[in-house]
Amino acid sequence: MTTYSAPTRDQMFLMFDVLGIDKHANIPGFDDMTPDLASAILDEAGKLASEVLHPLNQSGDEEGCTWTDGVVTAPTGFKEAYDLYCQSGWQSLTANPDFGGQGLPQTLGLAVSEMMIASNWGFAMYPGLTKGAAEAIEAHATEELKNTYLPKMMTGEWSGTMNLTEPHCGTDLGLMRTRAEPQADGTYRVTGTKIFISAGEHDLSDNIIHLVLAKIPGGPEGSKGISLFIVPKFILDENGNPGERNGVSCGSIEKKMGVHSNATCVMNYDEAAGYLVGEEHKGLMAMFTMMNEARLGVGMQGLGVAEVAYQNAAAYTNERLQGRSITGKKNPEGPADPIIVHPDVRRMMMTSRAFTEGARGLALWMGLQVDMLQRHPDEEVRAQADDLVGLMTPVIKAYFTDMGVEVAYLSQQCYGGHGYIREHGMEQFARDARIAPIYEGTNGIQAMDLVGRKLGAKNGAAVQAFMALVQESVAANGDHDTLAPLAKRLGDALGHLQQGTMWLLQNGMANPDNAGAAAVDYLRIMALVSMGYVWLMQARTAADKLAEGTENEAFMKNKLITARFFFERMLPDTIAHLTKLEAGSESMMDLDADAFLAS
Amino acid sequence: MTTYSAPTRDQMFLMFDVLGIDKHANIPGFDDMTPDLASAILDEAGKLASEVLHPLNQSGDEEGCTWTDGVVTAPTGFKEAYDLYCQSGWQSLTANPDFGGQGLPQTLGLAVSEMMIASNWGFAMYPGLTKGAAEAIEAHATEELKNTYLPKMMTGEWSGTMNLTEPHCGTDLGLMRTRAEPQADGTYRVTGTKIFISAGEHDLSDNIIHLVLAKIPGGPEGSKGISLFIVPKFILDENGNPGERNGVSCGSIEKKMGVHSNATCVMNYDEAAGYLVGEEHKGLMAMFTMMNEARLGVGMQGLGVAEVAYQNAAAYTNERLQGRSITGKKNPEGPADPIIVHPDVRRMMMTSRAFTEGARGLALWMGLQVDMLQRHPDEEVRAQADDLVGLMTPVIKAYFTDMGVEVAYLSQQCYGGHGYIREHGMEQFARDARIAPIYEGTNGIQAMDLVGRKLGAKNGAAVQAFMALVQESVAANGDHDTLAPLAKRLGDALGHLQQGTMWLLQNGMANPDNAGAAAVDYLRIMALVSMGYVWLMQARTAADKLAEGTENEAFMKNKLITARFFFERMLPDTIAHLTKLEAGSESMMDLDADAFLAS
Repeated sequence: MTTYSAPTRDQMFLMFDVLGIDKHANIPGFDDMTPDLASAILDEAGKLASEVLHPLNQSGDEEGCTWTDGVVTAPTGFKEAYDLYCQSGWQSLTANPDFGGQGLPQTLGLAVSEMMIASNWGFAMYPGLTKGAAEAIEAHATEELKNTYLPKMMTGEWSGTMNLTEPHCGTDLGLMRTRAEPQADGTYRVTGTKIFISAGEHDLSDNIIHLVLAKIPGGPEGSKGISLFIVPKFILDENGNPGERNGVSCGSIEKKMGVHSNATCVMNYDEAAGYLVGEEHKGLMAMFTMMNEARLGVGMQGLGVAEVAYQNAAAYTNERLQGRSITGKKNPEGPADPIIVHPDVRRMMMTSRAFTEGARGLALWMGLQVDMLQRHPDEEVRAQADDLVGLMTPVIKAYFTDMGVEVAYLSQQCYGGHGYIREHGMEQFARDARIAPIYEGTNGIQAMDLVGRKLGAKNGAAVQAFMALVQESVAANGDHDTLAPLAKRLGDALGHLQQGTMWLLQNGMANPDNAGAAAVDYLRIMALVSMGYVWLMQARTAADKLAEGTENEAFMKNKLITARFFFERMLPDTIAHLTKLEAGSESMMDLDADAFLAS
Repeated sequence: MTTYSAPTRDQMFLMFDVLGIDKHANIPGFDDMTPDLASAILDEAGKLASEVLHPLNQSGDEEGCTWTDGVVTAPTGFKEAYDLYCQSGWQSLTANPDFGGQGLPQTLGLAVSEMMIASNWGFAMYPGLTKGAAEAIEAHATEELKNTYLPKMMTGEWSGTMNLTEPHCGTDLGLMRTRAEPQADGTYRVTGTKIFISAGEHDLSDNIIHLVLAKIPGGPEGSKGISLFIVPKFILDENGNPGERNGVSCGSIEKKMGVHSNATCVMNYDEAAGYLVGEEHKGLMAMFTMMNEARLGVGMQGLGVAEVAYQNAAAYTNERLQGRSITGKKNPEGPADPIIVHPDVRRMMMTSRAFTEGARGLALWMGLQVDMLQRHPDEEVRAQADDLVGLMTPVIKAYFTDMGVEVAYLSQQCYGGHGYIREHGMEQFARDARIAPIYEGTNGIQAMDLVGRKLGAKNGAAVQAFMALVQESVAANGDHDTLAPLAKRLGDALGHLQQGTMWLLQNGMANPDNAGAAAVDYLRIMALVSMGYVWLMQARTAADKLAEGTENEAFMKNKLITARFFFERMLPDTIAHLTKLEAGSESMMDLDADAFLAS
């Protein structure tokens, strides 16, 4: 019953008009990136998303994955869709040409991945995990391992997973029990149980390349003694083809709230052959390569689910007739007005829209930073991009996913009681959205990463650079006819960010609980300021286009209205977050732990 | 896997120490209300909730209701639990003794209903709907109808429903198509289709008394031409016992996101015998009696689900070992500290706790107002209570249910990945909680009710009276050693409420869209201020008890800590809501309706 259409026009506006990616021809992969080529690629991806993947979204949820004696089967239609996805080359879009990739910009890749996720979250996780695993292998494994595994992963013939969590150990990986015993031939035997392994077993690909964290006996205690291994489902034969079955199997799959079409597996490793990736005991660092990529990807899930939920709510609120506008009938011929006339329905729809368009802008801006960090010829540019990406990764992961839940909620709310019923599909979005604030590091962990690690790195260089960018934009638009009020509000919010940063410097050192207590509010301030930064960029582009004359006048005007809504109705939360943050940790920490148990 | 224990101690503290209900002996039903009696009743209710109802909560969700050829069967164990519930007299606890009720205070009834809802939401809806239907019949029907139906409804032998919604008509009841044709004998023949009828059909009671809204042909257009009817599932025979089957049947039940143990029915009326309740065409007013009761009940669902989710998260965060406190090991013997040591876990737990304890206080304060409005001998007291109940009903319905979703979210978040898995039961709370902001008038409709109807009634007498109460409390605690900082913050928030009220007066008349655009933010400000009002009351009681010496020292100290958390970490949102509200409706309304459709 739900539909999806790719937001290609907005993506083109953002990539070319706002970010000007065609001006970055000096970055490898950008040289051919003309609007025509980008538009052709996005159109193709959009077709796959709307016509192939989205029609499998509700049926995939309803049917789910099945597990029988260790064999996991994806829902009907998924195998065919996966084959089409791979044959059309989507898996290798942005990958390194040395291993068969097409080398196109990550910026473009993010635009495509938004579509795949929005149209079918559960499906999109299969290739998404492969991409993350391949990038970790590329960054840390030996040439031999890269040449052995990457080419088939880039075609999608083989898929990938990441195995971190164990029953007693999620966030705290130091508690890990999975062992890897070194063998005489330089390989390892991996033994242990991993849980919550997405796409851990399925029938879509010919081989599954598990990246597994494990401890080599005798290594350092805690998280400093963790190593990373490739453990293929099928051990490769002498020709590099999947041969005998490795000692890894899927013990069961979880019944869960949503994302039913992607199996969440218990994976049992029993002396499985494993191949070390990177150095012994340095596995966590190698896994971080994959996790940063994955965190940005999870942020995109928040955006994707928000977009598809918003689109369906837009259709419904334009069709559903109920009540009359308080300023006079808007549909006098009909028995009632469409509910989009009611201010509170507008509030929900505009909040959703201001989020999705702002977040899309921020994600693509971030994609450009990733491209610069990975590929730019100038080392200084790479370093600065690296700082910004490090700073913004937890912000995007946490804010986008919380807002994915919020927009799914608002869109479902627009349907009234019909939103709670399965057939309309809105409740699936709400169920699917809920995992994203939890996995790949809970949003609380993201906030601690921001405050505890990213903020202080290099004496705060990243946050200073970011605030300087925002300050520049505030100054550049402060006298603009239309945009001055928006710039003023962004300046206020930036002030809150500066004040919050100062408070953390002064109080977080003295009592680390203050930093922990402030973390989520601080992250939210930074998220709102960065959304404001990107919204002001979009508004400025729209205002400039309108001033010089454009064919897309309505589109540009709508950008200005939506920008204004963001600054007037969403950005003001920064002051509340600052007030909370400045209250410190006492009232949060004073209760005895067991007092929570007494009712 | 989940557990529930009734918050009896907190309820006793609120009813006797804070609200002093034993000082209201002049209200009928309160004369015997000693702490001993109340405590005995709450203990019994708590046992039923923890030992009988809660063990059926997860199994009821998993199994759901079944529909076969019009027959609906509740999940295994529900019939036995329902019989026990009725035989123990819980159905008639607060009901009018004239019809077999026990006449105990509604305040106490709310405390009991919190337990039933928290332990098993789907179950609690069956008796909850009966109570609402009985109260509407009592308030509006003839003596004959009352004597015919009420006694059996008060024992629970017969249950009740409310039938408003039709496929094309939810909020806008004026579009209703169900017809009631007058018959020569004074009865009516009701024909039409109603949807989303909770407990519309089931196997728990011997008869189901449907309250049905329908139009009598020839009556006024729109919502002014709606009448209310009793339509029993079985027509009564000459002895008043269920006889032949009436022309009403359940066409199907909905597959929905949650609350699986309570069937949501499509009800088909085909010339069913109906009996007019109240006057012709005045049905909506009669139904409002039931709806106000129901809205408070739905608010209690928000509180109930928050409480049970919080309790389970409290247990989990005390058990789950993961990471070390940033201020030094708290469990040095163990492999890691329990996660309750981490500030951000505390933030989630304290937010939940500050909501549940505050909301419980506000609900019981509201219960006392309901008792006064219904039973107080002094007409002026009744009138003032009526104003406050009218004002606060939409606030409680909307705020409590949004917070029910929020606390279910936070509690689920405390479980990490385990929160997303069925077996732990946390995802059920999240799914169940989601219906409450939708039904009984969406939360947007509640906000419009507050701003469009309640605020202006009697020249704003209700809101003025409410603000005077808060002002008094701020003044009374402004010089208190411990409480002055809290009173100061409440005073600030009250200022925001006053400023928002003023803004609405000045701008809502000029452009009604401004009122609509402001409604949800205004409601949230009022909710936070009323929570602050009740929190300051609780804190004052706790401080007084500590000053005079008490056996419950730890309990009272924890109240002060939790109060402080509320004022420091939750109340500050008022300033953000005021800023948004004052932005007006332009950026919300400026987009063309069809612009939402273009991507």
